[in-house]
Amino acid sequence: MAVQATVPVRDKDDLSLAYTPGVAKVCSAIAEQPELVHDYTWKSNVVAVVTDGTAVLGLGDIGAEASLPVMEGKAILFKQFGGVDAVPIALATTDADEIVETVVRLAPSFGGVNLEDISAPRCFEIERKLQERLDIPVFHDDQHGTAVVTLAALRNAAKLTGRTLGDLRAVISGAGAAGVAIAKFLLEAGLGDVAVADRKGVVSRDRDDLTPVKRELAEITNKAGLSGSLEAALNGADVFIGVSGGTVPEPAVASMAPDSFVFAMANPNPEVHPDVAHKYAAVVATGRSDYPNQINNVLAFPGIFAGALQVRASRITEGMKIAAADALAGVVGDELSADYVIPSPFDERVAPAVTAAVAAAARAEGVARR
Amino acid sequence: MAVQATVPVRDKDDLSLAYTPGVAKVCSAIAEQPELVHDYTWKSNVVAVVTDGTAVLGLGDIGAEASLPVMEGKAILFKQFGGVDAVPIALATTDADEIVETVVRLAPSFGGVNLEDISAPRCFEIERKLQERLDIPVFHDDQHGTAVVTLAALRNAAKLTGRTLGDLRAVISGAGAAGVAIAKFLLEAGLGDVAVADRKGVVSRDRDDLTPVKRELAEITNKAGLSGSLEAALNGADVFIGVSGGTVPEPAVASMAPDSFVFAMANPNPEVHPDVAHKYAAVVATGRSDYPNQINNVLAFPGIFAGALQVRASRITEGMKIAAADALAGVVGDELSADYVIPSPFDERVAPAVTAAVAAAARAEGVARR
Repeated sequence: MAVQATVPVRDKDDLSLAYTPGVAKVCSAIAEQPELVHDYTWKSNVVAVVTDGTAVLGLGDIGAEASLPVMEGKAILFKQFGGVDAVPIALATTDADEIVETVVRLAPSFGGVNLEDISAPRCFEIERKLQERLDIPVFHDDQHGTAVVTLAALRNAAKLTGRTLGDLRAVISGAGAAGVAIAKFLLEAGLGDVAVADRKGVVSRDRDDLTPVKRELAEITNKAGLSGSLEAALNGADVFIGVSGGTVPEPAVASMAPDSFVFAMANPNPEVHPDVAHKYAAVVATGRSDYPNQINNVLAFPGIFAGALQVRASRITEGMKIAAADALAGVVGDELSADYVIPSPFDERVAPAVTAAVAAAARAEGVARR
Repeated sequence: MAVQATVPVRDKDDLSLAYTPGVAKVCSAIAEQPELVHDYTWKSNVVAVVTDGTAVLGLGDIGAEASLPVMEGKAILFKQFGGVDAVPIALATTDADEIVETVVRLAPSFGGVNLEDISAPRCFEIERKLQERLDIPVFHDDQHGTAVVTLAALRNAAKLTGRTLGDLRAVISGAGAAGVAIAKFLLEAGLGDVAVADRKGVVSRDRDDLTPVKRELAEITNKAGLSGSLEAALNGADVFIGVSGGTVPEPAVASMAPDSFVFAMANPNPEVHPDVAHKYAAVVATGRSDYPNQINNVLAFPGIFAGALQVRASRITEGMKIAAADALAGVVGDELSADYVIPSPFDERVAPAVTAAVAAAARAEGVARR
């Protein structure tokens, strides 16, 4: 990626406008009327893509510099799909409080913060503290981007099979950033029941080995009161959502309810191979681009930030995320089929639809500032 | 300004290279061989333009957000004149240690740090600590950029009037970031004598009101042992360098030695009006674009960083800065005249000449890493 001047600097006059002495008038205007910074600088359209390099793709804790290619790739997708400028910021610290302090200090230069590839459970605390301290959108894409696209696919899958979200019981494999966020978001959106399994089985109130984040999860998920293995929980379940890696044995998939949905999103190896999943499930989705129904975050984050920045939203609310998921589901429209519950990242209708829906929701929820 | 993708993302294949899963290979390669980050990301060509908004142009402490237009203007000049990508970073803290910690944490994402518009004396401490802790160039442009361009103009002025730097006694008005840096740098380059005056007069060993920075200055400047007012110090001086604002009375200018140089660089009002200066001085320079001989930092910083980044220099040494000044002076060549001691910012020979000289000096001084 590169930086690009959006004004010419060809002669003395250009130079005296872009830089001293002309720029002094712009600075003075902002000093007097702080909100002008959005009109007179790139702040209103630029997002910091912040990581500490601790949970990079499936590679784990590879450090700040080795994570830069992901941040740079993300920045390019922000621009390409959302028209949003983005700057890779890989931090030389993994301490949650230091990360929070650092991002708070950086915030005057940015219109939003996209957290990326920060390991759980620190990612939850970092996001929450930043949201409390900043009045610009802070969004951990590994959590909420994934959750938004999952909900969109689920809405269309339910529609295809003549059910509502309230009819569905889902089992999520993985209680990291994505698993926790998907569970909360699906419940927010009205899913019937959600159980989450970590390596030790279903997260339930009777377990005494839970972290604070999982204890909270045990309170709000698993209405059915399941305990035991992931495989056992899948018996009769309507939806499997895999964000864990690992493999689900075929008999467990076979034990799911009729017309089930299998969203096996681990990359590059889905938790259930699509060929196996198709034997039993009505709808199959993966994280891979070489199978139909790819659950890809790029469907969500560019439009979500573009919409939030457009109306200068102070934060990204649950309502804005649900609006994004609905808009994304809506792009599929009447072409809905088992192999087409979610649009392609290259469908040019996606980003404008998500952007408009998110901006409208921000206005409706009172967090828009223009 | 804006961000620009330098690779296309037009289809699934592009997407799987720019982002997951393709990007994982690039990350793994850097994790194994850290120096590959320079080949595989934009780090090798991107500079953070860092400020705390405390000394913005002549406007003073206007805060982080109001300083953003200057940082953005600077970023555009970096690109336009040096081909260097730059990112505005205006920090929400003015605490020196917090600024240092923040920039250290940001450093993995950048190839260099340009400090900008940070007030003295904190700017000296911040720069020194960052240089100690980081292995990438850290350069406070208000200090060293100004010093480099001043030295270049002075070299040519001396050449024009048949003198060497060692023949010259200079008086600097202003003991802030620029004044201190110019004084040290001119002595480093071999100037005969330099005295610096602050609001209370010449900085000398017999003063008991000096800050630590000025005490150090009193030790290394003012061989002549002057004390008293700026005006008195100008009596018989060869060079006046104004980086203070304020006004120098005409009789003090008249009292300078024959063939004197008046560099009155305050903006927009030079310390000596050029019409007055021309009555007495052999060479007159200002900070303004509407008079000949403009001392403009844009002549230096783009090429200095481009040269340092080109060879992956670990820092910017005195030798690299002197090489930059010499290269800048050299562009004038045989066309040297009283109205042309320094090239125009739009002279296309400037940046390549400075870049090449700085890269060569970095190699000669052993700080180049490729």
